[in-house]
Amino acid sequence: MDVNVKDPLYTLRHSTAHLMAQAIGELFPGVKYAIGPPIEDGFYYDFEFAAPLREEDLPRIEEKMHEIALRNLPIQRAVLPREEARAREEARNQPYKVALIDDLPAGEEISFYHQGDWSDLCRGPHVAATGELKHFHLLHIAGAYWRGSEKNKMLTRVYGTAWPTKEELDDYLYRMEEAKKRDHRVLGRELGLFMFSPEVGPGLPLWLPNGATLRETLMEFMKAEQLRRGYQGVVTPNIANAKLYEKSGHLRNYNSKMFPLMHDADENETYVLKPMNCPHHIMIYASELRSYRELPVRLAEFGTVYRYEQSGELTGMLRVRGFTQDDSHLFVTPDQLKAEFKGVVDLMLFTLNRLGLTDYRVRIGVRDPADDKYIGAEENWQAAEEAILAAVQEMGMEYEVSQGDAAFYGPKLDLMVRDALRREWQMGTVQVDYNLPERFELEYVGEDGARHRPIMIHRAPFGSLDRMIGLLVEHYAGAFPFWLAPRQIVIVPIADRHAEYAGVLRDHLRENGFRAEVDGRNEKMGRRIREAEVQKVPVMLICGDRDVEAQTVSVRRRGEGDLGAKTWAEAVLLLQEMARA
Amino acid sequence: MDVNVKDPLYTLRHSTAHLMAQAIGELFPGVKYAIGPPIEDGFYYDFEFAAPLREEDLPRIEEKMHEIALRNLPIQRAVLPREEARAREEARNQPYKVALIDDLPAGEEISFYHQGDWSDLCRGPHVAATGELKHFHLLHIAGAYWRGSEKNKMLTRVYGTAWPTKEELDDYLYRMEEAKKRDHRVLGRELGLFMFSPEVGPGLPLWLPNGATLRETLMEFMKAEQLRRGYQGVVTPNIANAKLYEKSGHLRNYNSKMFPLMHDADENETYVLKPMNCPHHIMIYASELRSYRELPVRLAEFGTVYRYEQSGELTGMLRVRGFTQDDSHLFVTPDQLKAEFKGVVDLMLFTLNRLGLTDYRVRIGVRDPADDKYIGAEENWQAAEEAILAAVQEMGMEYEVSQGDAAFYGPKLDLMVRDALRREWQMGTVQVDYNLPERFELEYVGEDGARHRPIMIHRAPFGSLDRMIGLLVEHYAGAFPFWLAPRQIVIVPIADRHAEYAGVLRDHLRENGFRAEVDGRNEKMGRRIREAEVQKVPVMLICGDRDVEAQTVSVRRRGEGDLGAKTWAEAVLLLQEMARA
Repeated sequence: MDVNVKDPLYTLRHSTAHLMAQAIGELFPGVKYAIGPPIEDGFYYDFEFAAPLREEDLPRIEEKMHEIALRNLPIQRAVLPREEARAREEARNQPYKVALIDDLPAGEEISFYHQGDWSDLCRGPHVAATGELKHFHLLHIAGAYWRGSEKNKMLTRVYGTAWPTKEELDDYLYRMEEAKKRDHRVLGRELGLFMFSPEVGPGLPLWLPNGATLRETLMEFMKAEQLRRGYQGVVTPNIANAKLYEKSGHLRNYNSKMFPLMHDADENETYVLKPMNCPHHIMIYASELRSYRELPVRLAEFGTVYRYEQSGELTGMLRVRGFTQDDSHLFVTPDQLKAEFKGVVDLMLFTLNRLGLTDYRVRIGVRDPADDKYIGAEENWQAAEEAILAAVQEMGMEYEVSQGDAAFYGPKLDLMVRDALRREWQMGTVQVDYNLPERFELEYVGEDGARHRPIMIHRAPFGSLDRMIGLLVEHYAGAFPFWLAPRQIVIVPIADRHAEYAGVLRDHLRENGFRAEVDGRNEKMGRRIREAEVQKVPVMLICGDRDVEAQTVSVRRRGEGDLGAKTWAEAVLLLQEMARA
Repeated sequence: MDVNVKDPLYTLRHSTAHLMAQAIGELFPGVKYAIGPPIEDGFYYDFEFAAPLREEDLPRIEEKMHEIALRNLPIQRAVLPREEARAREEARNQPYKVALIDDLPAGEEISFYHQGDWSDLCRGPHVAATGELKHFHLLHIAGAYWRGSEKNKMLTRVYGTAWPTKEELDDYLYRMEEAKKRDHRVLGRELGLFMFSPEVGPGLPLWLPNGATLRETLMEFMKAEQLRRGYQGVVTPNIANAKLYEKSGHLRNYNSKMFPLMHDADENETYVLKPMNCPHHIMIYASELRSYRELPVRLAEFGTVYRYEQSGELTGMLRVRGFTQDDSHLFVTPDQLKAEFKGVVDLMLFTLNRLGLTDYRVRIGVRDPADDKYIGAEENWQAAEEAILAAVQEMGMEYEVSQGDAAFYGPKLDLMVRDALRREWQMGTVQVDYNLPERFELEYVGEDGARHRPIMIHRAPFGSLDRMIGLLVEHYAGAFPFWLAPRQIVIVPIADRHAEYAGVLRDHLRENGFRAEVDGRNEKMGRRIREAEVQKVPVMLICGDRDVEAQTVSVRRRGEGDLGAKTWAEAVLLLQEMARA
């Protein structure tokens, strides 16, 4: 939540909260008022009602709000001495307001805002008159404890949104509606992508067949790109002896996010699920003496890691306890740092572009000098921060610097991606690290024959494969571009006698590298087509008598409808073109 | 160890052990004898020497054995009363023999075998005379505690081998020598396939770039084959709430092989590394109501599982603590069981064939009626065992039935594979399971509209990907067939001026799906070729002036040498043919 008191939107939304409170006061006499702040995109107000409020009451309240707005009541501030203010709220039977006044530090000015015969204890500021409030909408109600504590009474919180123009309000409501429809948790189940299971545990996704195919497609893309860019694949265990993470510093600095330890009393050894792949990759780097000729060594792994997030904070794929990173660690000489950093950023941008995520900003996380959580030598931090800044400058990129956003072991660059609904997601990340090479005493033999210390770069263009798919589901509302769609082509034989032809066509398409299947169920053709549409399959190929005769197929493309009959060769050319797009 | 007393090899080796004991008695007077049984492929004998025996002493002993054999001493049995036998060994100062006599149950006949003036307490049988013993070789010495207990004295064990013919002895010694050269632990490191790290933990392989590529190649092969056969890929976490394995019965029946639990006191939840993928796949099956029309449901996953094997039993890839199964679970109706079982066996044989492992036998593991470890209803066990037997019979396969080799939850079929050195490995396995569907109350809606219980088939054609690669390394001595070789093609530009041409050729080959790399190091061509040969790269493409001019390349093939200059198109055709072989 990023609410700025000087922001006119803040004032607008705060005043709309008052407007709602006044309307509710008129409709529900005797209602008790608690607090009503503006929030991102809107506002809420907490009330104690005599009888429970229902969602169905919201339109009536909204109507009353418009009515009061039309009265165009001037909104005026008045200061009262504490005792008088307290007495007024007691007389009105407003115990929450009395409690709020009691909380105010001695000497603080106590102000009320009046509009017509209604007023509220409030610090302000507000708009000049209720007539300025026009473009608002009440959204939903929820329960909320007074002062957020379950020991207190449960109040009723009413949420609303407010905007300066009708266009902005409509756009917001459209995006809200769309976001609901695009909820990756719902679509993920409907499209057979993934599920969660209480028996397995919260935050531990199980990937269903279509989701497994989507993962595979993303991994194939990244593998091919990494091969082209000189990465080498490795595979390491999901666990390690806890001593490894003691040495890396994770057990001390990252402990709260690690799963409980596995201790074997007999062998007196302790194992732990890896929260990160770095120490494993370091073991591989360190397993032989490296020469400067071999550097940069770029080890890449689709590494599944486990982080013990608070169970209350787990939400769909956005925050999980087990996920797969498209992780890589580059071991470079100081001379190579800037070029390799640029190479990594280039791969990240290339990746986002291919995924259709072209709206992003670059944030460089550096130390907060006031915080003492950072480990490693001052000179290394400086060199790393300088290398990152020089790299993005040379690439001509816009960026912002965010103090305190560095990892505890080094500065980083994050890509903040806006999806189709303009919501921002923190995706891929790249970090420079002088610390781990130091802790593990990594070396390479330089051109001078002496031992030198390499620098590490940590990077993950997708970030988390699981989270990236969550984003992509919402970005595309499940209607993935052809190359990504787990189900690319459904072939619909009109009648049983076309099933064999459909099967041969499917095999032909599969041999050409497409994901094709036949829906030969004994259902009406219209129903089969509708089902494939609901499942957002990008291409349907219908075959009937004429197609069998002419060795053609009728192509239906999502969003474009019937493209007519095509020969197999024409269809394959079209599909190849779609796969490149 | 499968030693049959009636086997003439048993007698031969037992007699050779005596021959060695007699030779050692003549060379080292006063030596004390313990036991000397025949074992698979040979024999050993345990002795207590006054001064330590060294490996260098073995030729001298072997020479003496041949000398005694030439004496052609008749071997004769004589029975002695217990007290007399005991007195004789005490008089000879043979305390181990005295202890052995004391161990013999009262009433048992006590026999000695005499050859010349030497004799040994022994049950027999033996060959008729030492002249029959010709083809033997002493192998190595090792320490061994008397009666296998570290509380007792450490004796010296001398190992040897013996065969009926010189050809068999030579063949065995050749295979022993080859096996040493092919040790997958050594080759695994030399070829950059995998490593172990004490910091990560014993039995937890880290796959190096070439090994990761080999894994990938095997997985791609299996994925394509599974797609063709109607499997669906899934991906599930490496952990689960312990309750899941309580419900599955693993926590009770498989506990000793599971890693220590992860207990979170705050949430009061316990997690555990999965030793098997079945319960996760069951959660996916059970996540929706299934119709008989959907069955069989075949869920496949390259699932990495963890089993807490005794640290002393870990050996290379043969026994590890973390490995990846090419696992699948089929959920089938009773009507489908036999056909699906046959389909699975067919895939397994297809797989072995593709891997060049064509020497195998089939073992069907059924219950040992005397053991009470098995869970599940009697009628289900019977139905499952019958279905397996009917399936292999209909497939016309030879098989043997092994009582007591069933899993605790159902009967199984194992493939026992012989490698190029005729050593047997237990590889792929397929199991029928009525038990887990019962425990998890799995269902499908039948054609009759009623709920029915599916049957599960567990299967893994590779078994463990890690173990399979261990086997393949030894089977091929690291010289993998072209399609499997992680490094398929090394392009060697003769001089710097050919490097660009080599790079274009590499990209061309990569686009055609081959794994190609350029060795453009500033080293003599001969050295670069030798290095690729040592690394068992199947194809080298040399390019020099004439090649650049004629747009050709000189092909060198492992085992065949120089194949001469070929155009790019010819080279690609040759490589494609090699990839199919």
